[in-house]
Amino acid sequence: MEFLRFPSVSSQTERAGDVRDCANWLVRHLKGIGLNNARVIPTQRNPIVYASWRGAPGRPTIIIYGHYDVLPGEPLKDWLTPPFAPTIRNNNLHGRGAADDKGQLFCHVKAIEAYLKTRGALPVNVICLFEGEEEIGSPNLAPFVERNRRALNAVAAVISDTRMISAKQPAISYAQRGGLRAEIEVFGPPHELHSGAFGGAVHNPVLALCDVVAGLHDDRGRVAIPGFYNDVRAWGEKERAFMAKSGPSDQGILRSAKVETGWGESGFSLYERTTIRPDVTVNGITGGHTGQGVKGVIPARAMAKVSFRLVPDQRPEKIAQLFRDHIARVTPSTVRSTVRTMSPIRPALINRRHPAVQAARQAYKKVFGVLPVLIRSGGSIPVVHIFQNVLEIPAVLMGFGLPDDNIHGPNEKFHLPIFLKGIETSIWYLAFASNWRRVP
Amino acid sequence: MEFLRFPSVSSQTERAGDVRDCANWLVRHLKGIGLNNARVIPTQRNPIVYASWRGAPGRPTIIIYGHYDVLPGEPLKDWLTPPFAPTIRNNNLHGRGAADDKGQLFCHVKAIEAYLKTRGALPVNVICLFEGEEEIGSPNLAPFVERNRRALNAVAAVISDTRMISAKQPAISYAQRGGLRAEIEVFGPPHELHSGAFGGAVHNPVLALCDVVAGLHDDRGRVAIPGFYNDVRAWGEKERAFMAKSGPSDQGILRSAKVETGWGESGFSLYERTTIRPDVTVNGITGGHTGQGVKGVIPARAMAKVSFRLVPDQRPEKIAQLFRDHIARVTPSTVRSTVRTMSPIRPALINRRHPAVQAARQAYKKVFGVLPVLIRSGGSIPVVHIFQNVLEIPAVLMGFGLPDDNIHGPNEKFHLPIFLKGIETSIWYLAFASNWRRVP
Repeated sequence: MEFLRFPSVSSQTERAGDVRDCANWLVRHLKGIGLNNARVIPTQRNPIVYASWRGAPGRPTIIIYGHYDVLPGEPLKDWLTPPFAPTIRNNNLHGRGAADDKGQLFCHVKAIEAYLKTRGALPVNVICLFEGEEEIGSPNLAPFVERNRRALNAVAAVISDTRMISAKQPAISYAQRGGLRAEIEVFGPPHELHSGAFGGAVHNPVLALCDVVAGLHDDRGRVAIPGFYNDVRAWGEKERAFMAKSGPSDQGILRSAKVETGWGESGFSLYERTTIRPDVTVNGITGGHTGQGVKGVIPARAMAKVSFRLVPDQRPEKIAQLFRDHIARVTPSTVRSTVRTMSPIRPALINRRHPAVQAARQAYKKVFGVLPVLIRSGGSIPVVHIFQNVLEIPAVLMGFGLPDDNIHGPNEKFHLPIFLKGIETSIWYLAFASNWRRVP
Repeated sequence: MEFLRFPSVSSQTERAGDVRDCANWLVRHLKGIGLNNARVIPTQRNPIVYASWRGAPGRPTIIIYGHYDVLPGEPLKDWLTPPFAPTIRNNNLHGRGAADDKGQLFCHVKAIEAYLKTRGALPVNVICLFEGEEEIGSPNLAPFVERNRRALNAVAAVISDTRMISAKQPAISYAQRGGLRAEIEVFGPPHELHSGAFGGAVHNPVLALCDVVAGLHDDRGRVAIPGFYNDVRAWGEKERAFMAKSGPSDQGILRSAKVETGWGESGFSLYERTTIRPDVTVNGITGGHTGQGVKGVIPARAMAKVSFRLVPDQRPEKIAQLFRDHIARVTPSTVRSTVRTMSPIRPALINRRHPAVQAARQAYKKVFGVLPVLIRSGGSIPVVHIFQNVLEIPAVLMGFGLPDDNIHGPNEKFHLPIFLKGIETSIWYLAFASNWRRVP
């Protein structure tokens, strides 16, 4: 609860002090459990919390990755208790970051503590790498990993930042979508105009923006940006059959979302639409007068925040260019538009037959009594791609979130019985990892 | 400047105290110039300021109407000096309400003061009717006028709440568009969802709202609500020729708006589009995360504030129904929508050959040296219709605003030399009105 109390919101620069305070708290905590070399490593923005334990020579080294930064708590009015005032209700710990990712990160911290307090040693060497910029696309993690490639030499990374199917059915994610954020701004008259005097004769930038946004999809729910699907990998019947067997049903996804009707690209299941198919959506839109009362104006500008979810083999840099070209082409001559793109993340795939993944399956089995299913995730964890491409090690995504944890939304929570099982699973994973004969 | 300092914003209920303070100040001021029976008349929301002078038996009675309520000052950052800290720069008095309508209303107050201080009497009987709800559609004025039909017996009303062509060329408005406000709200999932987990499978209410808004116009710039144009009066070549001769050119309108390219319904000049043609536009739109930073969510809801400008013989009540039906029809089954309509105002036409209008033309000629042109306005002044239909008197729209006064926008101002000429014009108008032999 102390950890959750920090509003370590990485996307709001005015929270930089809170982010730093949270990093310092985490370092003190890691020292407290016996990781004496825990320290804060500054980056251009938010620090990385680093700690290592090297007391098992000849044994493999495992990187434990997590992030202590969180999303904003807004809209605050939808929370039963404030996002940064953690509260336990019905065995759930509520608060921003409870599941994503402070709570899940803490499963491993507590597993390490359990080893050190009971046996005085870990069964493997461990590197803790906890970053403060995951929610803004990990801009400083890749340079850090690249600069410290040798120090970060390891056989695998374990990341707990994904979801289980249910409290009884764990899951390991073997794919994440990539991503790209963009802001479109549309400019009309140099300042607001009276909509009586000019309505009907001057183009309204909100109308123009709505046209542009409405034109992002065609009638079949496909993204209508020319070239958008060019690099999308087509999956064969075998993989799609595996997905249909292992993944959630349409009804299951709708139940999690608490909506009645699905939407999107025809010809694909909802699970496929959120994992092997790309998407673009609007995270926010604003323009003109939206407060109380009325104001008869043609606004001067309008803005939308857009996010892409990308799949193999799309590249965010290429999508950014296609998007900029598209917006320039569809912006009518009556207004002006600008596009800013940011936070490119490549999609990632992990070989689900890799021994590091299989060890995680066995650890889950010990604790939950069943093997985890192997699923794809719709979200984007930038570090997976970094580990794969810079360190050339697999990232094992052992998620402990539940479908109704409401990460990124109001009343985010972490289920405490799962927290305890998460600690146990981490303990078993480190034990199994210690037996690897050679770097897999 | 004292008058402008009150943030008498009628659309914000939290400003009700400021609105009341402003009304009380105005009453004190009217008493100070000799209108001893000036008083505040409460309504269900904002009070009416009423005063009369009946010292000219046998002479006609003229109603002077104005409004002391104003629009909000937002967005504040676009103002050089704050909206409610009136400031004089280059002979212009800047502040919210400087032109719309406190400054214009004050032309008549100062004309009355001039008569009473120099001659001790007015040439006609006068009723001052200054309301505090014009910017929210005058909801309580019509009931007040209806209840007090006898006390308000007059030959004409004069209203200064419109614009001149330029500082040298006055204008009298003989038509206003009607209006209707609406709020469309679109609801998606019961709360925000992670756009990674659900993007591509759950309909985003912002996307749905953008579709709806984009569908309000067709490719030719016409409003695409079925039946919308059914009651729009078609004007013959003669009226359109008169308008082309007397009204502003396309270039003139674009210059006022400070935009380069026109927009809207093809087949009509920009002047026609803003006067004899109806329109719908978006005054504001909001949904999802629009603050600093990024938040990968599918928002739970999105909202747009819409305003219609209507022309003879459209009726706001019928348009409200057509709009509700249209939105219900175009809302996809993947989301839910609600529509709230408010502030209906009927369009109004004044016979430009009426003696009350002709007297105003002569008054302008005395002061400005030229006859005013007769033009149509794009905006909506609810009271014009009330005077016409309840009191059965014409409303003479003697505007003293300049095209660049930026009413409803930031840095609204009133040009002080025009303020002085406005006072003079009012003085002449009352003098000419005293000579009417019979109620025209």
